[in-house]
Amino acid sequence: MKHAVVLLSGGLDSTTTLAIAIAQGFEVHALSFDYGQRHALELEAAQRVANSLRAKEHRVVKIDHGIFAGSALTGDGDIPKNRSEKQIGAGIPITYVPARNTIFLSYALAWAEVLRAMDIFIGVNALDYSGYPDCRPEFIATFEKMANLATKTGVEGSRFKIHTPLIELSKAEIIRRAIELDVDLSLTHSCYDPTPDGRACGLCDSCQLRRKGFREARVKDPIAYAA
Amino acid sequence: MKHAVVLLSGGLDSTTTLAIAIAQGFEVHALSFDYGQRHALELEAAQRVANSLRAKEHRVVKIDHGIFAGSALTGDGDIPKNRSEKQIGAGIPITYVPARNTIFLSYALAWAEVLRAMDIFIGVNALDYSGYPDCRPEFIATFEKMANLATKTGVEGSRFKIHTPLIELSKAEIIRRAIELDVDLSLTHSCYDPTPDGRACGLCDSCQLRRKGFREARVKDPIAYAA
Repeated sequence: MKHAVVLLSGGLDSTTTLAIAIAQGFEVHALSFDYGQRHALELEAAQRVANSLRAKEHRVVKIDHGIFAGSALTGDGDIPKNRSEKQIGAGIPITYVPARNTIFLSYALAWAEVLRAMDIFIGVNALDYSGYPDCRPEFIATFEKMANLATKTGVEGSRFKIHTPLIELSKAEIIRRAIELDVDLSLTHSCYDPTPDGRACGLCDSCQLRRKGFREARVKDPIAYAA
Repeated sequence: MKHAVVLLSGGLDSTTTLAIAIAQGFEVHALSFDYGQRHALELEAAQRVANSLRAKEHRVVKIDHGIFAGSALTGDGDIPKNRSEKQIGAGIPITYVPARNTIFLSYALAWAEVLRAMDIFIGVNALDYSGYPDCRPEFIATFEKMANLATKTGVEGSRFKIHTPLIELSKAEIIRRAIELDVDLSLTHSCYDPTPDGRACGLCDSCQLRRKGFREARVKDPIAYAA
């Protein structure tokens, strides 16, 4: 059986990506990161999803927080709320984390080489959230090229492939794909700023994009929102 | 003053690289990694070197050990000893660590972006130790390209540059360059398998390459060897 490393945050996109990798016949090794998220809920969601979808294993790698200083997502800055669609789509979000996907994919590459897995899946999406530079196809293509130059496996002639099955999909299409694959979306967690009792805020960019996706997919979002 | 992030292991090459960055007029931010080295001596050497050369700061990032499983340098495997020059030059060494420089440079990139430093220095060398795929110029060039696609800074038009001032130098030339720059090489640590009292083994590949370099440079190596 072919093995794949799948980056898993426990959100909609990475959960759907995990289900797609499994549907493609891969034995999946899910990889999450503890990088000073404001909340442990994201990692709990990742664990629930990995169990529910029967990942072969799920590993959480702890990342030194200090290095990511300067991002709202990991620091003490305010998470933007209630922004318009136009505001969300304009420029690079304040939730940008320097070199995040570069670091995540680098760990995925190291683990893949140890596991002798040639396939790495990441749920990046260039449409709904085009603001992140490290979600673009040209970044992924160049990372893949670099990965094959960086490694023993690459030098010896095997090729690592970075799979981005969601890259051209809208959030609504991602939700429909997840439902086709029988994914329990109530297990997922998307909010940047959940309430103390664990509900999604409903107002941050991530909640807004998620809700818009469910509306457009004409599906009821199974999670609870505070607002 | 221009700022640079310099990867620093405390060995000959990264120490000389740090001195070169300073000589080029950079304010340097030294970055070391605790990735389950068999010995803390490497990190102590890095700290001594950063102090001695007056780095602006020195940070040690802890890296989850498990991800690097399968390498002699971090695991419990035997370090090869007393290999011939031909053996050392043949193929990828057992001390290869999957995606190591990719991960190190990714952290350097994140930190550089936070610091608004556009310059990253790494002491890779393609001549004496050509066995490591992630020490080759084509790897570095592709990482640099990827770095400028991955980041907010790159998208906004500034360019990160990965400097590899040693890439074409022999070990003897590196030693001579260090001495020209008045580096105290007694502070450096190169051995993969030091004795309990902290002396270099003298027999591992790293010790052998270092000793050969000093012989060829016609300079006395200031560190003590066990054998």
